[in-house]
Amino acid sequence: MSRRISDEKELDNVASGNSSRRNEPIHGVERPEKNVMKDIGATFMETFFHDDPLRNFKGQPASKRVLLGLQAVFPIFEWGRGYTLGKLKGDLIAGATIASLCIPQDIAYAKLANLPPQYGLYSSFVPPLIYAFMGSSRDIAIGPVAVVSLLLGTLLRAEIDPEENPVDYLHLAFTATFFAGIIQAALGFFRLGFLIEFLSHAATVGFMAGAAITIGLQQLKGLLGIKDFTKNTDIVSVMHSVFSQTKTWSWITIAIGVSFLVFLLITKYIGKKNKKLFWVPAIAPLLSVILSTLIVFLTRVDKKGVQIVKHIDKGINPPSLHQIFFTGPYLMTGFKIGAISGIIALTEAVAIGRTFAALKDYSIDGNREMLALGSMNIVGSMTSCYVATGSFSRSAVNYMAGCNTAVSNIVMSMIVLLTLELITPLFKFVPNAILAAIIISAVVPLVDIDAVKLLWKIDKSDFVACMGAFFGVIFISVEIGILIAVCLSFAKILLQVTRPRVAVLGNLPGTTIYRNVEQYPAATTVPGVLIVRVDSSIYFSNSNYVKDRILRWITDEDESNAINHLPRIQYIIIDMSPVIDIDTSGIHALEDLNKSLVKRDVQLVLANPGPVVMTKLHDAEFLDIIGQDKMFLTVGDAVRSCRTKLQDEA
Amino acid sequence: MSRRISDEKELDNVASGNSSRRNEPIHGVERPEKNVMKDIGATFMETFFHDDPLRNFKGQPASKRVLLGLQAVFPIFEWGRGYTLGKLKGDLIAGATIASLCIPQDIAYAKLANLPPQYGLYSSFVPPLIYAFMGSSRDIAIGPVAVVSLLLGTLLRAEIDPEENPVDYLHLAFTATFFAGIIQAALGFFRLGFLIEFLSHAATVGFMAGAAITIGLQQLKGLLGIKDFTKNTDIVSVMHSVFSQTKTWSWITIAIGVSFLVFLLITKYIGKKNKKLFWVPAIAPLLSVILSTLIVFLTRVDKKGVQIVKHIDKGINPPSLHQIFFTGPYLMTGFKIGAISGIIALTEAVAIGRTFAALKDYSIDGNREMLALGSMNIVGSMTSCYVATGSFSRSAVNYMAGCNTAVSNIVMSMIVLLTLELITPLFKFVPNAILAAIIISAVVPLVDIDAVKLLWKIDKSDFVACMGAFFGVIFISVEIGILIAVCLSFAKILLQVTRPRVAVLGNLPGTTIYRNVEQYPAATTVPGVLIVRVDSSIYFSNSNYVKDRILRWITDEDESNAINHLPRIQYIIIDMSPVIDIDTSGIHALEDLNKSLVKRDVQLVLANPGPVVMTKLHDAEFLDIIGQDKMFLTVGDAVRSCRTKLQDEA
Repeated sequence: MSRRISDEKELDNVASGNSSRRNEPIHGVERPEKNVMKDIGATFMETFFHDDPLRNFKGQPASKRVLLGLQAVFPIFEWGRGYTLGKLKGDLIAGATIASLCIPQDIAYAKLANLPPQYGLYSSFVPPLIYAFMGSSRDIAIGPVAVVSLLLGTLLRAEIDPEENPVDYLHLAFTATFFAGIIQAALGFFRLGFLIEFLSHAATVGFMAGAAITIGLQQLKGLLGIKDFTKNTDIVSVMHSVFSQTKTWSWITIAIGVSFLVFLLITKYIGKKNKKLFWVPAIAPLLSVILSTLIVFLTRVDKKGVQIVKHIDKGINPPSLHQIFFTGPYLMTGFKIGAISGIIALTEAVAIGRTFAALKDYSIDGNREMLALGSMNIVGSMTSCYVATGSFSRSAVNYMAGCNTAVSNIVMSMIVLLTLELITPLFKFVPNAILAAIIISAVVPLVDIDAVKLLWKIDKSDFVACMGAFFGVIFISVEIGILIAVCLSFAKILLQVTRPRVAVLGNLPGTTIYRNVEQYPAATTVPGVLIVRVDSSIYFSNSNYVKDRILRWITDEDESNAINHLPRIQYIIIDMSPVIDIDTSGIHALEDLNKSLVKRDVQLVLANPGPVVMTKLHDAEFLDIIGQDKMFLTVGDAVRSCRTKLQDEA
Repeated sequence: MSRRISDEKELDNVASGNSSRRNEPIHGVERPEKNVMKDIGATFMETFFHDDPLRNFKGQPASKRVLLGLQAVFPIFEWGRGYTLGKLKGDLIAGATIASLCIPQDIAYAKLANLPPQYGLYSSFVPPLIYAFMGSSRDIAIGPVAVVSLLLGTLLRAEIDPEENPVDYLHLAFTATFFAGIIQAALGFFRLGFLIEFLSHAATVGFMAGAAITIGLQQLKGLLGIKDFTKNTDIVSVMHSVFSQTKTWSWITIAIGVSFLVFLLITKYIGKKNKKLFWVPAIAPLLSVILSTLIVFLTRVDKKGVQIVKHIDKGINPPSLHQIFFTGPYLMTGFKIGAISGIIALTEAVAIGRTFAALKDYSIDGNREMLALGSMNIVGSMTSCYVATGSFSRSAVNYMAGCNTAVSNIVMSMIVLLTLELITPLFKFVPNAILAAIIISAVVPLVDIDAVKLLWKIDKSDFVACMGAFFGVIFISVEIGILIAVCLSFAKILLQVTRPRVAVLGNLPGTTIYRNVEQYPAATTVPGVLIVRVDSSIYFSNSNYVKDRILRWITDEDESNAINHLPRIQYIIIDMSPVIDIDTSGIHALEDLNKSLVKRDVQLVLANPGPVVMTKLHDAEFLDIIGQDKMFLTVGDAVRSCRTKLQDEA
């Protein structure tokens, strides 16, 4: 079926768009064989197993499959075999660096979750160990993180007051951690990992920035030495709490806190300016803790109103399986809190995993990663840990310090173990103001102004979702912020599906190409023929709109044609290329459209329907209604056919 | 820029797909001028004012605008001026026919809403009058309908028991009707009418069928003469209620009910077979009422256990404004019930309006229609009416009886007025079994088996939504059925957006056209080049999937190329035609994709990005990353360029 153009004149006519090119074959639209079960199977596979996780297992003997299965669940057996001393060196340095960063952060973050300080350290001991065996990221650093700690603390406090009933509060925290793990593992196991995609990047940027500011504001309590602080997290309550109690501000506390905060921020700035000095901000918090502890110990300013940690348990994680609420009224509460904090923790860990995997070009299996994170939190909940996940700041340090594998997490875990066993009691002199300064300096990078600027520049609706999440978090609460972000993200998708663009196409001079006349102002329309393209699948939510929009377009065109003494529209060609799918409402709308067009003596012509649409149009017998000869492979073919008929009539 | 092909040999090369056609110009991709405010404005207009409701007002003098405004709110002033005696004849006959059908139905439907029978008649008097002045449909017949009556009755009974507290029940019914009207009018006024599109056709089919069966089952009470009937509507409770009380069945009641039901169904069948006899089923219910009333009056079987209407008030609608709860705990309840029943009523009325408008080819303004329906229910709630809407069965009769305008509704309304004033007391002898028979025969057509078959044939996911709604209604409750239907409809859209199809394209032999190789098995791929098309906009919800899918496709292709000794993939061309929009997550995914491709020494080439995508790629400086020369107007151009480079390298 070779294309032949007979003479130069004809060719010129093609080029100028005036020819009917009758001798060129018109291509047919093909309809694939229909196979319902295969279609459903393919959709199922693409939804849940698009990465074909079992591909390595195909055609392998049983013994090999067992090994592969083991390696699939515990990737350490895969990469562990190729582990060398050279790699260990990098992992040792990285592990020691992140340990020095995580120890002070852990103690501080536990306070965000309203838990005693040792629980932060516990959560940096067991979960990283489990993750090292099961996880597939080589760069992520596992442990408690600021946002999840705050979220968990806020949600738990809404149920139980941590000061009045610390025992139940702790038990509920373990229950929530347990269910966070169960949900994470279940999402991975049932390959529902794609659900976390629904929290869009834009919403996450806004949510994180809002959470960072909320966390920072919470630190005013420690930094100013205020004793009677609000339990709400919204900015109005916090500001009221701060400025209504100016008399209780402790000036020694402020002096210590602010000076160390300035120190931490300067080291952060140095690390940012010179990437080689990444270790400066990494060890600065530990240095601050040691220095401030010495100062307090020597001056005993704790007796002059400077609040200190006071008490911290020595020794490793006690078992806590018996403390989880498996029955009673707190079971459902724990499940709900676990679900929310577990999903937020997942979002963060998966984003971190992907970021560093892209930098080193290895691949992360999202679902398997969730199984690893879930397992680590389930085990964590039984060993006195609260929800742990990947920390962005510590992962970045881990990466820059030259980690090679998850062994750096094992190294960190071991250092935390030694800390717990040997030097924990020394931390009791750490001033709360230092912890506040460490938290503030840790959350500063979460306010990513460049990302917000980029959102504004590229996509206004993303910016709106971002701001919605941001203001939701700082003015109402963390949960409401998440809810607003998810709803705005969805609304955008649904709006686009409900009001798809319908573009008018024109011919690019000298070609048989038809493109949007708004994008290509040089494109020329064809007299008597209106060419439109529906830029979305046609579904119940937009079918009536699409129908009305096309009819109105014909009315408008006819009005302007009448004024300009041009022929009225006799053919409407719908370019179906972007219409990937159509449902029964869509087909009814096309039928209604055709009815109205018949009444107006306009003929409906379709160009390039895809396989799914073709099958459905055929099943609905729509092709018999409009005529089999009204279907073309390209807009060019359709125009050629319409023009031939118009000339024949003339 | 005319296209010239120099010689026949070159032409043949093009046809066989082996040429590089270096002498043909490659077309550039244009980027429209960016204008944020204009874009936002255009999106806003398309979302809320896509039908350009003010177009007639443009360029008119002030006095004319006032008239047009009046006509916009009260279309009767528009069509009324052209009203003729000839039209009146058709409207009189149609009005009388629907009146004879509505009077017995009204009395029966009031029972579905747990209200005294006269309230059904009231609702067929005031609302149709208001609608006649404000509505734009010429064929719709207004009044109480079965599904909305059942829904309202179920929702109201969940709050107040109509037997124990009939006064509050009635007041709550008026409150719900008031808010149903407010919400309908508000949706229309704020042009949010598109929200009702979210109840898909498929879901509506399932919901209606489920509601019809539920309504039919409820009639077993009247038809079997059972006194102590369950208050639940699910099929299990009803069946238990029916078969646990076989001893209380009244055989005289059953004899009367079933014989009239058979009569009604036979007339229905006659009307269906011979469209000219449409009036037979239309007057059959009134005939049944008159006949059965006479039988009861003459034989006094009501004293032998045949339940009759017993009491019905005479006279027209009493005012009820003072009975609406504008304060107190029932205010919010009334609002909630009004919202649900108002939206379901709207869906039905708008669907009917559209159906008949398509048959006669006039247009219905959905938003203006909602304003009319809302106003009629607001006025109705103040004149002892409950939620009225368009009835499908009566509208069909209206249409077939030759109605020309909404005057047929005025005629019907006047006949109902006379009925209320003169003959209402005679209805007290109507046996309940006859009302049950009338309801059953009225809801039979709502179970649209052909529509369900069509759903199964065309779209399996529509079928699932339909069945979800159906089983939700019959096994749980009407509200849950609606909820299931809406959720399933949304889930389908979101799934399609989350897991878009990614198709591999091939060249149709003898053309420069590239199409899906699955749809066109003859299409040939190009060695060293992989061409894929992403069949959806790229959003946060699918960006990672799209990236992973494309990377996996390259891996798969390279594996099979290695086996078949074909060159490895060096270029990947993404056909962006269906990618209408991209958000920041999508751009990040493209950037990550490009990073991975660079590592694999594969070049990324884009073909035919639309105006929005082009603008965003430019704003994100993505074109600078991949290179401005990697962007082509068509896949054909892109392939030509890649092939040239491959040949140059070889």
